[in-house]
Amino acid sequence: MKLGTVLHADVEKPVAVIDAQRLLDLRAAGLMLRDMVELVEAGDAGLEAVRAALADPKGRALIALDDVEMRCPIRPVQYRDCLVFEEHLINSFAQAEKMTGRPFAIPPVWYEQPIYYKGNRMSFIGDGQDVIWPSYAAHLDVELEMAIVIGKGGRDISAADAPAHIWGYTILNDVSARDAQMREMPGQLGPAKGKDFDTGNILGPWIVTADEIAHPVALDMELRVNGERWGGGNSRAMHHTFARIIEHVSASETLYPGEVIGSGTVGTGCGLETGRRLAPGDLFELEIDGIGVLRNRIVRP
Amino acid sequence: MKLGTVLHADVEKPVAVIDAQRLLDLRAAGLMLRDMVELVEAGDAGLEAVRAALADPKGRALIALDDVEMRCPIRPVQYRDCLVFEEHLINSFAQAEKMTGRPFAIPPVWYEQPIYYKGNRMSFIGDGQDVIWPSYAAHLDVELEMAIVIGKGGRDISAADAPAHIWGYTILNDVSARDAQMREMPGQLGPAKGKDFDTGNILGPWIVTADEIAHPVALDMELRVNGERWGGGNSRAMHHTFARIIEHVSASETLYPGEVIGSGTVGTGCGLETGRRLAPGDLFELEIDGIGVLRNRIVRP
Repeated sequence: MKLGTVLHADVEKPVAVIDAQRLLDLRAAGLMLRDMVELVEAGDAGLEAVRAALADPKGRALIALDDVEMRCPIRPVQYRDCLVFEEHLINSFAQAEKMTGRPFAIPPVWYEQPIYYKGNRMSFIGDGQDVIWPSYAAHLDVELEMAIVIGKGGRDISAADAPAHIWGYTILNDVSARDAQMREMPGQLGPAKGKDFDTGNILGPWIVTADEIAHPVALDMELRVNGERWGGGNSRAMHHTFARIIEHVSASETLYPGEVIGSGTVGTGCGLETGRRLAPGDLFELEIDGIGVLRNRIVRP
Repeated sequence: MKLGTVLHADVEKPVAVIDAQRLLDLRAAGLMLRDMVELVEAGDAGLEAVRAALADPKGRALIALDDVEMRCPIRPVQYRDCLVFEEHLINSFAQAEKMTGRPFAIPPVWYEQPIYYKGNRMSFIGDGQDVIWPSYAAHLDVELEMAIVIGKGGRDISAADAPAHIWGYTILNDVSARDAQMREMPGQLGPAKGKDFDTGNILGPWIVTADEIAHPVALDMELRVNGERWGGGNSRAMHHTFARIIEHVSASETLYPGEVIGSGTVGTGCGLETGRRLAPGDLFELEIDGIGVLRNRIVRP
């Protein structure tokens, strides 16, 4: 199933996709839901209720896709973003060396365990919403990533058990202010203003439930800007699988339903790697096979 | 006012301190509150309602302090932790040089802007709750910090306006797994498993409302372990004030009521700086003048 959140008649509504033209309003279909997090928290019973509603969609619960604006499919309970594509690191470090004159090398720990940071869970937007150029930045970039939504919570989850904790998959665009990021990184606490400004994190268009995507993931990914291919790859190149990521993160640390974890940028999945940068008005399309296309424009106020 | 969250009769309740023996159950006093975040969201009107209830405490709303266990006063909507005490960095880097043989120097950016990371908002505990030694770590430490709770939200908040966005102050213990932290830091994305395990973040015992603490803060801070003084200082040594931190973080980024921001460790406010480490069973007391004492024990399962 494909699930998401839309703005319809001035109200944000959790929905399921019926077909290319129609959505099912989950509340109007009888599910008592505050938001998508609550559906995740409802676990298998929640998904069963959606399946039942989709099998017999009532007229008043139908929404035409043409009548909605997309919103972020879920507000993450917490948001982590990893860095598990080696090609992205190799390319980015080569560019960073050019920009700074300092040498960069992949540290041994990167091969041994997933490296990640926690981003701003409150700054997410959805498909079609404008990215607002942050006032303090000159160098903007996009990052093509795959993300998971945690379903069943838990701690000390083994890699073998981890796939059962994945509720769904979606596309993540980790919009980045490279100049701010480069400035703060010597501070050793990871990215902050380089990643976390309003509208700087994008999920969508839909969350595809985990039953429809085989783990470990092996899906084609492509980034286009203004219709031109900037790069892409396949999620099978993840050096650490999502299962291994869940195992690492959940060691002595509880994961909760509705948390979101990004893969990090697929190789060539951002402008930095190939010497490109965004300009105001650029339209970017992030496509992952089996999930869809996440389209947004960046505007400078 | 001092506000917090307690476990009483098996229910978590937001409370206000009446005196050294008695608390006011805010719900029983007529405030319809889900939790402390909701009181923060209620703004000045919420605090006025608490003041009114404290002025005329009804019998059935009184709780004896002896009858409660403390809980984390607020579950942060989001949690950032800074690094603004120079002495902490100087001491920590000297130790890191000894441990790794590599040289460390404070980067120029540290003096120019607040450096921070985002931590796990779901792993907080309160005063008196046990810290559970994470399974993957051998070297545990505590960090004595001051924290603010954001009240009124906003973005692009100037340093001049920022104090009006501080709802209250509390004590933060950023318990750290130094071996995990040292291992992951070369990954360049900041601390992850070194900071974020269940029970690894502690706030409390109370949030003191901002009207009772002058900004910029200048309060004595002291860390004791098993009754022995390990270190301490004064929060006036913050190189960037909380106002400057709010200005930096809120640039093109909305801050929401109930977010929590830590100062970073006061100089000599952790064991790392002076070559000490925790052992199972250790009892640590973090004291900040005007706020109180945050006491917790670490146990190894």
